[in-house]
Amino acid sequence: MAVKWPEGITSASLSCGIKRSGRPDLGVLLSEKPLQWAGVFTQNAAAAAPVQWSRAHLGKAVRALVVNSGNANACTGPAGDAAVAKTAEAAAATFGLSPDEILISSTGPIGMELPVDKIVAALPDASAGLSPEMEPFFHAIRTTDSRVKLAAFGPLVGVAKGAAMIAPNMATMLAFLGTDAPIESGVMQGLLAGAVNRSFNRICIDACESTNDSVYLFSTGTGDPVSLDEFSAALDDVCATLAEQIVRDAEGGTRVVSIEVTGAADEEAAARLGRAVAASDLWRAAMHGSDPNWGRVLSAMGSVDRSLALDKVSVSIGDVEVFATGAPTGSVEAAAAQMDGDFSLSCTVGDGAGAATVLACDLSPDYVKLNAFGTT
Amino acid sequence: MAVKWPEGITSASLSCGIKRSGRPDLGVLLSEKPLQWAGVFTQNAAAAAPVQWSRAHLGKAVRALVVNSGNANACTGPAGDAAVAKTAEAAAATFGLSPDEILISSTGPIGMELPVDKIVAALPDASAGLSPEMEPFFHAIRTTDSRVKLAAFGPLVGVAKGAAMIAPNMATMLAFLGTDAPIESGVMQGLLAGAVNRSFNRICIDACESTNDSVYLFSTGTGDPVSLDEFSAALDDVCATLAEQIVRDAEGGTRVVSIEVTGAADEEAAARLGRAVAASDLWRAAMHGSDPNWGRVLSAMGSVDRSLALDKVSVSIGDVEVFATGAPTGSVEAAAAQMDGDFSLSCTVGDGAGAATVLACDLSPDYVKLNAFGTT
Repeated sequence: MAVKWPEGITSASLSCGIKRSGRPDLGVLLSEKPLQWAGVFTQNAAAAAPVQWSRAHLGKAVRALVVNSGNANACTGPAGDAAVAKTAEAAAATFGLSPDEILISSTGPIGMELPVDKIVAALPDASAGLSPEMEPFFHAIRTTDSRVKLAAFGPLVGVAKGAAMIAPNMATMLAFLGTDAPIESGVMQGLLAGAVNRSFNRICIDACESTNDSVYLFSTGTGDPVSLDEFSAALDDVCATLAEQIVRDAEGGTRVVSIEVTGAADEEAAARLGRAVAASDLWRAAMHGSDPNWGRVLSAMGSVDRSLALDKVSVSIGDVEVFATGAPTGSVEAAAAQMDGDFSLSCTVGDGAGAATVLACDLSPDYVKLNAFGTT
Repeated sequence: MAVKWPEGITSASLSCGIKRSGRPDLGVLLSEKPLQWAGVFTQNAAAAAPVQWSRAHLGKAVRALVVNSGNANACTGPAGDAAVAKTAEAAAATFGLSPDEILISSTGPIGMELPVDKIVAALPDASAGLSPEMEPFFHAIRTTDSRVKLAAFGPLVGVAKGAAMIAPNMATMLAFLGTDAPIESGVMQGLLAGAVNRSFNRICIDACESTNDSVYLFSTGTGDPVSLDEFSAALDDVCATLAEQIVRDAEGGTRVVSIEVTGAADEEAAARLGRAVAASDLWRAAMHGSDPNWGRVLSAMGSVDRSLALDKVSVSIGDVEVFATGAPTGSVEAAAAQMDGDFSLSCTVGDGAGAATVLACDLSPDYVKLNAFGTT
């Protein structure tokens, strides 16, 4: 899929030497004109230095963004803050801007000093490589991602990276969205927060919350007017598509389950139950073995909703009902046959109108191996 | 260790045919005289039928307990409740008691109908096998446990089973404690709740909460008077010893980490931070690989305490400080050398007086394999 940034925005992908592999690790996004923008960031108290920088610039028009992969610049103390400021100054000098017009983002391992001099040395090369194509930018921000993650709906395009340390209930991962729709940044911020809550906050890989999660939405404002309904729908579609691509590319994941909770008191209650199931190591291990161990689904829901009434609960794995209004159906063997690949897990928990779908993946021995080594 | 029940209490271990392996799967505890007792149970809304039965008998003197392994009798609907009642009636008939003097407990996979007729048929055999020895009772309640779990301090003895679906912040697993100390059941209940909170609620294997967790404390009341301080200290020791044995025998676990949080606002805040670290799949995988990835410790704490101030946080792995008041020390290689076996992880988070220690284990590929298959 060839996806381009909105007219007036270009990006470049560089290898500045942060990654030992020599793969791209520095991305630059540049706009001809000031951009309105919205951003949703991790709620983690250990938020990375670049997250703190960009968050402080919410509400101000910007012209460029510098993002590196291979190093999160998180939990790096005063040196981390200095590295962010130095990057903004260098980018401003390169592009003839003010440092306050530059947003900064990072992703990668936590706690290692960012080799900011490599970024500063490489930034002048970015000017030559700027292009409207989005895909090279993905390669600059990827870490253990194995697949390109792009989306385009209506006036919106987006790119994301994921892989692990993906947990619900906050903005997870890095995503950059662009539009030419002329929408005021405050309105964009509200729409983005809602769209993120319905998409990136409804996926779970390992229930671990990142220090660097960020979703950015940029608008050139040069396009045709668009209704907010239409824009909001496109925003939901772009976010949902990128979120699903992140789960599909989960570290060690071999299948995706769509956890559909209905009958809850409200949408957030339904999402909370879905996230609890998605975060259960035991249910995730059972998924990996195609084991229809639905008791682990009920115990996960019962651990976050103390007033769950089992006699109003029904659970289906794919088309097979395994638990019907409070009692087992005995159909576990038929259910196991539904679990060989992606499948849906449907949980009705009562008579309420609240419904939500959470996307999750299985827990495999490979996930453990991928995450057991690395820092030293 | 030869541990015996208090004088007047005996137990029996039987194989009634619930486990296909033919191993013991039915335990009976009988007291010559009425027992005062206290119990702490899972808070899960999907609490098993036997948990509901026993919980309803809190405050009444009892004479016997019937416990089976190999089947949790959880999420089994009306049939599960009927099986509990039938077990109590059969035990009452066997021992010449009233059904209301019988407590019931179960552990094993969730959601399968309990073959209660096998229990009923085997109960009369229990009379012949009653003995003051505790260890056979352990074998009756074990599931995937590989080691015997017994403890004795002062006037108290205890036995427990664990293995997985072990999460903090509730009574986790099954444990049965006995004493001859003459203490009123209401007082015992208060002391037990506190001891459980400081022990079983401070261990974590997989952050999954069971539907069957129960801790029982029985008193014959026939022993010498004991001060509440002395009794409470012994209760803490028995609970802490059994809790540690459960973590040491975690499914797939290869090492135990003692997560020591200090400087928090209060003890519960410290325990909450410790439990967040203990529950992090990423930190648990890093432990497995002896990878001193302390960034995962900070991100776990930052995800549950939004006001965590990194510049007041220090982290040590064993004797090696890796993060000192807000900045990395760079000592990761020395830290890795501390992680080959059991080790301590010390986190100072501020100037508060709150401190707590949480015991956790690593996440291994074997944990996933052990839990990926089994229901069908």
